[in-house]
Amino acid sequence: MKLLYEGKSKLVYVKNGDMLVLEFKDEVTAFNGLRRDYVPGKGIVNAKTSAHLFKVLEASGVPTHFIDYDGCRRITVKKLDMIPLEVIVRNYAYGSLLKRMPYFRKLDILNLPIIEFHYKSDELKDPLVLEEDIVYAGLLSKGELKQIKVMALKVNEILKSVFSKAELQLIDFKLEFGRDRDGNLILADEITGDTLRVIDSKGNHLDKEVYRQGGSSKDLLMAYIELARRLGLEVVGNDIYC
Amino acid sequence: MKLLYEGKSKLVYVKNGDMLVLEFKDEVTAFNGLRRDYVPGKGIVNAKTSAHLFKVLEASGVPTHFIDYDGCRRITVKKLDMIPLEVIVRNYAYGSLLKRMPYFRKLDILNLPIIEFHYKSDELKDPLVLEEDIVYAGLLSKGELKQIKVMALKVNEILKSVFSKAELQLIDFKLEFGRDRDGNLILADEITGDTLRVIDSKGNHLDKEVYRQGGSSKDLLMAYIELARRLGLEVVGNDIYC
Repeated sequence: MKLLYEGKSKLVYVKNGDMLVLEFKDEVTAFNGLRRDYVPGKGIVNAKTSAHLFKVLEASGVPTHFIDYDGCRRITVKKLDMIPLEVIVRNYAYGSLLKRMPYFRKLDILNLPIIEFHYKSDELKDPLVLEEDIVYAGLLSKGELKQIKVMALKVNEILKSVFSKAELQLIDFKLEFGRDRDGNLILADEITGDTLRVIDSKGNHLDKEVYRQGGSSKDLLMAYIELARRLGLEVVGNDIYC
Repeated sequence: MKLLYEGKSKLVYVKNGDMLVLEFKDEVTAFNGLRRDYVPGKGIVNAKTSAHLFKVLEASGVPTHFIDYDGCRRITVKKLDMIPLEVIVRNYAYGSLLKRMPYFRKLDILNLPIIEFHYKSDELKDPLVLEEDIVYAGLLSKGELKQIKVMALKVNEILKSVFSKAELQLIDFKLEFGRDRDGNLILADEITGDTLRVIDSKGNHLDKEVYRQGGSSKDLLMAYIELARRLGLEVVGNDIYC
């Protein structure tokens, strides 16, 4: 298969005209690439977690790019025309929200979820953008923007319920969307500890915060394995490869 | 009078319990203070310009903090409880909008004006914030936020008309608001070449872009004097003090 693109956490291959294969890498980066580590096993756990969550969402009526999971680190997905936006849904204050608005304290509950749009650009550091920016710049029609917000809130409700059953609290997460050939909006990318924040009843993170806050590669892998286990998945350990 | 605060372009004195005096300085800064110059005459021209525009707005029904202008560099204003937000109204793409959303090109016309809110913080570099951030953080009620947007659009209509008569095109501008003792929202701060962008029919700026784009202190003063003249004001020259 031809390599189409290498991202920070995934390789993207062309399977055929309609399908791509996402291969989850054993790497983690944080702080815009300033910290970077090799985490053997991460790719497998994250592929498994993402495949599972996409299946759950698809079963609940959210159109996703998910087609098939090979049981290891590769997911076959629909090829989409990707929209260069990160859609962030927040239930509690954390991360860049605290940086731009210090009136919030970490983990303050938000009355209603906040939906943010960030323009995807490593160079610009994924800046926050306004809905007007998106529509006026022609990235989404007004109707599509509304549709994405509805989808993002639906994903939030489903994920909150999934994590709540696993005794985890969903703080926030990032989604990406694309359009299929017919112009339908489809949920794409991944949903893993790299792209969401969850805490257990003791306030321990089972997400990339472990690494951002100074934890080792091993600590991160253990958190990701625990996250997958909580979701009822059989998971590989540090030393298992497929 | 007791000095309450020194900002980048103004000194703020306490006149009495209800009033402050703003003294416009002969200084200009750009790029978060990285470029800084002394511009003799700037304070006088800007005080005159701001006083004039506040009077025009007040006469058109916009409540402002303006009370009196001494004819030189001092304006007496109502003392307000200031809201730590910059409200930016854009008619054409420019500045930070281009930085966060490169799909726009400089001076692209915007279908409808974009209103942005930035949290006032030199340290954080005045980050863009969402309306939800402002309401959830308790900076403004939902009703106040709506009221500020209505006021900002009204100011835009009035300023567009004023500048259009002066054969100038209003690109964007920044407003600040405060609350009076009774909790009424009042337009505050200044409206000058430091806080708005206008171009003449040849595309020449009569605002701080002159300086940001490498012009000298003298170039900047000439632009500000021309801006004031276009508004029908008698203006002082480089060498005139009051």
